[in-house]
Amino acid sequence: MLRIISRTLLQNSITRNSYELKRRYIYLFINEDTQTNEYASLNYNRLFSTSVYLVDEEKENIKKKNSKNSYTYRNITCGDLRLDNVGSKVTLCGWLEFQRLSKFIILRDGYGQTQLILRENDEKLSNLISKVPFESIVKVSGTVLTRPKDMINSKLPTGEVEVLIDDFEILNKATYLPFNVRDFQRPKEAIRMKYRYLDLRFSDMQRNLRERSTLLFEMRKFLIESSFIEVETPTLFKATPGGAQEFIVPTKFPGQFYSLVQSPQQFKQILMAGGIDRYFQVARCYRDETSRPDRQPEFTQLDIEISFTTIDGVMELVEDLMQKCWPNFADTIPHRFPRLTYKYALEMYGSDKPDTSFDFKIQNCSSILQSTNLNIYKEKFGAYYIKFPKECAVLGKSVKGEFESLAKQFPLLKFIQSKISDSDNWITRMKNLFSSEIAWQLKEEIEIKDGDLLFLAYGDKSQVLALLGKIRLLHVNHLENNGLKIRRPGMHLTWIVDFPLFDQNDDGSLSSVHHPFTAPHPEDIHLIDEAPTKMRSLAYDLVLNGNEIAGGSIRVHDPSLQEKILSLLNIDVDSMKHIIEMLSSGCPPHGGIALGADRFLSILLKTASIRDVIAFPKGFEGRDPLSGAPSEVAEKDLKMYHIKCIE
Amino acid sequence: MLRIISRTLLQNSITRNSYELKRRYIYLFINEDTQTNEYASLNYNRLFSTSVYLVDEEKENIKKKNSKNSYTYRNITCGDLRLDNVGSKVTLCGWLEFQRLSKFIILRDGYGQTQLILRENDEKLSNLISKVPFESIVKVSGTVLTRPKDMINSKLPTGEVEVLIDDFEILNKATYLPFNVRDFQRPKEAIRMKYRYLDLRFSDMQRNLRERSTLLFEMRKFLIESSFIEVETPTLFKATPGGAQEFIVPTKFPGQFYSLVQSPQQFKQILMAGGIDRYFQVARCYRDETSRPDRQPEFTQLDIEISFTTIDGVMELVEDLMQKCWPNFADTIPHRFPRLTYKYALEMYGSDKPDTSFDFKIQNCSSILQSTNLNIYKEKFGAYYIKFPKECAVLGKSVKGEFESLAKQFPLLKFIQSKISDSDNWITRMKNLFSSEIAWQLKEEIEIKDGDLLFLAYGDKSQVLALLGKIRLLHVNHLENNGLKIRRPGMHLTWIVDFPLFDQNDDGSLSSVHHPFTAPHPEDIHLIDEAPTKMRSLAYDLVLNGNEIAGGSIRVHDPSLQEKILSLLNIDVDSMKHIIEMLSSGCPPHGGIALGADRFLSILLKTASIRDVIAFPKGFEGRDPLSGAPSEVAEKDLKMYHIKCIE
Repeated sequence: MLRIISRTLLQNSITRNSYELKRRYIYLFINEDTQTNEYASLNYNRLFSTSVYLVDEEKENIKKKNSKNSYTYRNITCGDLRLDNVGSKVTLCGWLEFQRLSKFIILRDGYGQTQLILRENDEKLSNLISKVPFESIVKVSGTVLTRPKDMINSKLPTGEVEVLIDDFEILNKATYLPFNVRDFQRPKEAIRMKYRYLDLRFSDMQRNLRERSTLLFEMRKFLIESSFIEVETPTLFKATPGGAQEFIVPTKFPGQFYSLVQSPQQFKQILMAGGIDRYFQVARCYRDETSRPDRQPEFTQLDIEISFTTIDGVMELVEDLMQKCWPNFADTIPHRFPRLTYKYALEMYGSDKPDTSFDFKIQNCSSILQSTNLNIYKEKFGAYYIKFPKECAVLGKSVKGEFESLAKQFPLLKFIQSKISDSDNWITRMKNLFSSEIAWQLKEEIEIKDGDLLFLAYGDKSQVLALLGKIRLLHVNHLENNGLKIRRPGMHLTWIVDFPLFDQNDDGSLSSVHHPFTAPHPEDIHLIDEAPTKMRSLAYDLVLNGNEIAGGSIRVHDPSLQEKILSLLNIDVDSMKHIIEMLSSGCPPHGGIALGADRFLSILLKTASIRDVIAFPKGFEGRDPLSGAPSEVAEKDLKMYHIKCIE
Repeated sequence: MLRIISRTLLQNSITRNSYELKRRYIYLFINEDTQTNEYASLNYNRLFSTSVYLVDEEKENIKKKNSKNSYTYRNITCGDLRLDNVGSKVTLCGWLEFQRLSKFIILRDGYGQTQLILRENDEKLSNLISKVPFESIVKVSGTVLTRPKDMINSKLPTGEVEVLIDDFEILNKATYLPFNVRDFQRPKEAIRMKYRYLDLRFSDMQRNLRERSTLLFEMRKFLIESSFIEVETPTLFKATPGGAQEFIVPTKFPGQFYSLVQSPQQFKQILMAGGIDRYFQVARCYRDETSRPDRQPEFTQLDIEISFTTIDGVMELVEDLMQKCWPNFADTIPHRFPRLTYKYALEMYGSDKPDTSFDFKIQNCSSILQSTNLNIYKEKFGAYYIKFPKECAVLGKSVKGEFESLAKQFPLLKFIQSKISDSDNWITRMKNLFSSEIAWQLKEEIEIKDGDLLFLAYGDKSQVLALLGKIRLLHVNHLENNGLKIRRPGMHLTWIVDFPLFDQNDDGSLSSVHHPFTAPHPEDIHLIDEAPTKMRSLAYDLVLNGNEIAGGSIRVHDPSLQEKILSLLNIDVDSMKHIIEMLSSGCPPHGGIALGADRFLSILLKTASIRDVIAFPKGFEGRDPLSGAPSEVAEKDLKMYHIKCIE
């Protein structure tokens, strides 16, 4: 096997054979069999019988071939070399990843890996390199060669070529390496986050951050092309009453604090009143929820608001946005998404963020069991079940125990889980709980067959549905962990609409299901005084594979209605005076939505955690893993901010 | 004059004339002379003699003609109606701006204004509208008409048409209007900011926010197309030693605080070490500098960093970015910008952000005046002057006084300002300050002519240059206020390079001119122990019309050099351990820049303040004008954050 290892511009003294071949170059070959260099001894035919690619003159030096290399001193990345480049002079920069058999070196950058090869007998460089620690940053110039056929690495996009080193320069030695950049040696997450600069060198993190940038840019592009404008709104603001816990920021005014916004909600509504009628923002938001494991104290949402719109307007906008920006690597989605009412979602899935990627819906059997209604006021009573057929009727002892304890968290219901080996026997057992007539009727109507697995619960309807909703998910997770495939693959998007406007707290007070600016459903507005908890709102959520990824609503634009709602929620109207005034100044009707970028990307990219789609996430309890923040502050700073630390 | 006021799809009973004209429609016309409606009495010729535009069937209902109207219930904006639309049915939404002669109504939205016209004799609607307060939000459907020739408003893009109202609906009444949306009644800035939703309705604020969105998007687009990726970095972080005053954020851990980042500097360098080799971010940054009038506590910068680059690489990148994204409304700029060294800028302009839009450079006369060197150590002595010719020699008494007091702030120099009516006389006066030989020599070398205005200062060189740099600007401002045109119009961009690496403080300690991560100039690295203040850095600033709009540098990538620099700056190396470790892990050489978006936009858009290019700026002392934040925080929140307020 002969391989080109260099070529030289032809002057006068040339070898006939190579001259004929390329006219203006002398080719230097290596004969792999004899391990000697040749350039005079080969003939035309022999050359073509090898896998050597001949190159055109124009390729001599790769021009900064694509934009990845502009403004740098490399001319190609370690991920972009192909057979096309054979014969070219290239300059690569990257990490010295590995050295093998002393003459093969793997160079890596953010785009991929390239094999370098040392010239035969260049022991000086070979020794030098062997002393350079892995992960050192080097700059290499060389010539692109084909790899011998038996050395081709088909797993690597650059696996058909290698670069013969002409020049090797160490730019920055790696002297501190808490762990190796090797997929099979990936450390625990805490270590990965502390040394994020090493973790980011792994190809999955490279992909996650690059796809994140692409998706957010495509979304911006769609919105800009749809005549939306991006407006940056403040993050230092006043506390919002009745929302999530907000961080506070002391100021040089004694006793006075900013709050970090939990969303741009108020600002975007003010923009609507200000004639910025098509607004969006990729907005940083803050919530002090350090105790919840999968939440970040700061997170990103794509925030959208539009004037003179309807619920359909916003939904179509989001559907168009998703269709246009949906990444190629993800399973395709339909242009329009199904819509479920909140009530339906609860009744069928026991959740307002139903996982619609599989069926096994919750079924109603209230009419059969209503005589057993457990001191539950009739209207609140419900009996529901989920039935799994034989092939899904796996129910281990520990899982059964798990479901049993879960059910104990719902005191207002009775829960029965039965793997039915013999349905007659089951009826006998059920007699202890309710009459045999009822048991018979259940068997008939539910169509219980031997081998079925039945989860049945009755009592307080909302507790029954909540329990069965959880069991539906948990049982399917268990089945899938046991190797069964229950979920349909792909991305399942569903709108949930017709949320209630208010939730009733245990003390009888009301709170917003969405937020205090959500408009009531116009059909229910007459209920505001008599039965506010019966009112539906104009809110909507977008659910992806069982996760809420976006939520929004048409907002209240009538100032007196807004005042009424604030007072029903027991929110001091005075603290919202600027909003009431804004609505009174001639505010267009408007609505919008916010999409949680971190969770959305995490689902799209199928990462284990949202932390994997964030460059620098906070770790446990909101700690910054790099710097250890939060940390102590100098006494003079505390003084300047007129605060004192207490235990 | 006949004008179309409606047309109806032709059924069976048609008027012959109109049938012939448009075949499928009946046209209803108004005869302006008789003020009667006509549709049967006109003939073909008469119709064409009017200015009526005939429309094609396809235009019957304007499809949601451009993307501005998608997802809304309008089909055109108040700024987009043109002669082309005449005859179309339109639905507009906007503010009722004005009613004139009871039948003309101006409707406004974020895109412009349109005149509506009431049907003759529709007194019911006319009366209704007259009772609707201005700035109420209304929805109007109607037919587009040409305006009579004498009613055309050539100042308004929509001034050739008007809309005959078919349907008028009040969507939200304006009941609270702290000021009118009229250019000639624009209130003071404090009021504008408090009621930003009204202020944003003015066309200048609409333009500012819309152009801001466009420019930032174009910059993102250029960078994405140049293979950069946008990475969002945290804002809750650890305090940076030795920078601007940072806001602190208490946490649920007693005595422990986050700091709000003043820039993503550390994160972007970590990204470089992590293989994200082409990074950018439109980043929110925070500085607690509430006392400085034109600074905002939170601001936006376009932050860029790139691996394997040089000073030329970064400058070319920024030059390409500017060229590609430069807005059409601004004066054009050259592709490449001149570069001045820091030393040259100080010597010629007395400033490291020189206004190069006019000359009148500072001139050196140290050699003449060196014998008078005022106890200034020779090397630090300098004598400089600026000479203005007769036509620019305006120097009122109050201005002279202003300059005199300015000069008093520089104790190590002597300052002379002379309007020279008679140069011989001037020499006589100067004799009291220095010998008449020197005065003569000055006159000769400076070429003083009768009528010239001379500003001369000598003493401590850096004070002399600083004073003359200020006077150069102030005097030209005064001249321009007096109606002279001194500055060349347009946008003047200049790079400043070769900054010193360190500044020496009064106590002899060193501080960074740029920041502690800036690389020293390789030619000066040998001075690091003996003469660190003589070292230049690889920093660069971009100056636009005398304002620094961007600054950056090539960074230190060698961990031991970084440690050395931190210790020279007296910064605890331990607090920067994560950076030293990061540099030691194989960090590519890298550099970058940050562009201050707010100031840049303010200059481009020629606004009075950066607050005019920010949707919701903070006001005096960092107060939020809408909500009054900062404000008090509930006792329970303070407790949760383990802090107590003190005076």
